[in-house]
Amino acid sequence: MAVEGLTRSDAEEELGTLNGWAFTRGGDAIGRTFQFDDFSEAFAFMARVALLAEKMDHHPEWSNVYNKVDIELTTHDAGGLSLLDMKMARAIEELLA
Amino acid sequence: MAVEGLTRSDAEEELGTLNGWAFTRGGDAIGRTFQFDDFSEAFAFMARVALLAEKMDHHPEWSNVYNKVDIELTTHDAGGLSLLDMKMARAIEELLA
Repeated sequence: MAVEGLTRSDAEEELGTLNGWAFTRGGDAIGRTFQFDDFSEAFAFMARVALLAEKMDHHPEWSNVYNKVDIELTTHDAGGLSLLDMKMARAIEELLA
Repeated sequence: MAVEGLTRSDAEEELGTLNGWAFTRGGDAIGRTFQFDDFSEAFAFMARVALLAEKMDHHPEWSNVYNKVDIELTTHDAGGLSLLDMKMARAIEELLA
């Protein structure tokens, strides 16, 4: 199922409403690093993002080293960014609000 | 607290008793990719590895993309591999046995 991609200007506008996310992969993805006090807190966050991912049927590409979690969001079916990535970035932020 | 590192030959011997792990970072780490049916299974595995990591007080450097989990183990306090990495690799394998 193809998903409609975002134009660069629409993506920039969306990105402007998010906190700390930046374009990666030449604009085909957005990424952000989250830092916590320790691994336990980092993984608790990851568990919540995982539940969110399953609920949204949209999955992050992410890595973790101790207290740091790097998240990248992209939409393979759109060959780049879609509104789904922005929606998910916003939902991830809300977990931390 | 410094941890005693493994000599290359000891590390090779340990590695020979593990399944699917290979040296990475020029021998300073070991890594393996685990593949599952879907994200739900991959994250369930990650949750178990996270519990193990806290219990062992030794944390993986790892990434996940949908059904794939890449794990790298190294011991910063040893400046490379230690027995702790081998012990953890074995414990991770036991989760899947």
